[in-house]
Amino acid sequence: MQDIESRCRWHTFAKDEQIIDREDESKDVYFIVSGNVRVVNYSLSGREVAFEDIRSGSIFGELAALDGERRSANVVALTMTDVATLTRNKFEEVLAENPDVAMRLMHRLAQVIRASTDRIMDLSTLGANNRVYAELLRLAHEGVLDENSAVIKPVPIHGDIASRVSTTRETVARVLSDLSKKGLVTREGSQLHLHDVMRLQEMVEEFRGD
Amino acid sequence: MQDIESRCRWHTFAKDEQIIDREDESKDVYFIVSGNVRVVNYSLSGREVAFEDIRSGSIFGELAALDGERRSANVVALTMTDVATLTRNKFEEVLAENPDVAMRLMHRLAQVIRASTDRIMDLSTLGANNRVYAELLRLAHEGVLDENSAVIKPVPIHGDIASRVSTTRETVARVLSDLSKKGLVTREGSQLHLHDVMRLQEMVEEFRGD
Repeated sequence: MQDIESRCRWHTFAKDEQIIDREDESKDVYFIVSGNVRVVNYSLSGREVAFEDIRSGSIFGELAALDGERRSANVVALTMTDVATLTRNKFEEVLAENPDVAMRLMHRLAQVIRASTDRIMDLSTLGANNRVYAELLRLAHEGVLDENSAVIKPVPIHGDIASRVSTTRETVARVLSDLSKKGLVTREGSQLHLHDVMRLQEMVEEFRGD
Repeated sequence: MQDIESRCRWHTFAKDEQIIDREDESKDVYFIVSGNVRVVNYSLSGREVAFEDIRSGSIFGELAALDGERRSANVVALTMTDVATLTRNKFEEVLAENPDVAMRLMHRLAQVIRASTDRIMDLSTLGANNRVYAELLRLAHEGVLDENSAVIKPVPIHGDIASRVSTTRETVARVLSDLSKKGLVTREGSQLHLHDVMRLQEMVEEFRGD
């Protein structure tokens, strides 16, 4: 590992600073030493589509490093973020010399493809309301309290959910308000409580957009 | 390579035969020796969402082989198809022993992620009509005649386009009929001619669904 580190360069980005611009010619790969980043794209009309938040210990920018083509998305620092970067050539050397590093990267790429496949299915077969329900269930995954209730903390930002499930902030606000009126969710301080996870799971597949 | 072949098992599938069922527990990876396959999923209501057609010389089934999780999709033979299969363990051996094979696989995974990212952007920001225009332009990519005209052959099946861009056969039929009335496409025997590629490119970004 020390050998890999010696080939890296080190950079620090401020909160909200753009780390990769989609138009960049750079093919470097980034390892997050500390901090969090968001992978995001914009339509021509400026609509934001969020792809993934990536935490310390993981990498980004690997697609252009692997295939030499252009950047597929923008990457922005969500917090102050320290990264170690490798040039495309040095990254290829590291992968060729370390089959375990290559295998971990392939595992990560497989996970990205699975998440993309799920999202394409959601976008193809669910209406916007149902996609918001599905996103709440995903966010609740780490905060399961018992078999039918869960907690999401911190309370998710409407714009973040909208960008993750490709709808508007207004739709997210309306859906959360409706769920609150039905007693399915309540906000308590900085937490969002889900009181009937099974009902929400059923609602994901009801009233589909097809 | 002979060493890899000796670790494979060989199978032949008939046209329309299912090769991988999403519910399968198998983690084998498949190399297509001859033939073509389609990667496809179904919503609970039975709506078909096509992901990718894969040709001879390429592989499929690698996600479950890489991460040990369940199959992410179904795979069906489009023609009579001969495959060589490797178990998960043997596949991992091959990748560890052959950095060039691992690098080619990472390159392919990167391409799948890029295609998924483009599709998520299309689904998030374009209406169904515009997604059909975009798919015609993708299909025409191999049949460019001059700077503003192209040919798609064979004429694409409406249901295939619908399944690729997540809309209905009826929408595809209506869009093609409208394009034909405008003189932008004509069917000539087994070919579909595009007469104004630049106009179609402009139309993709018009009347967006956001």
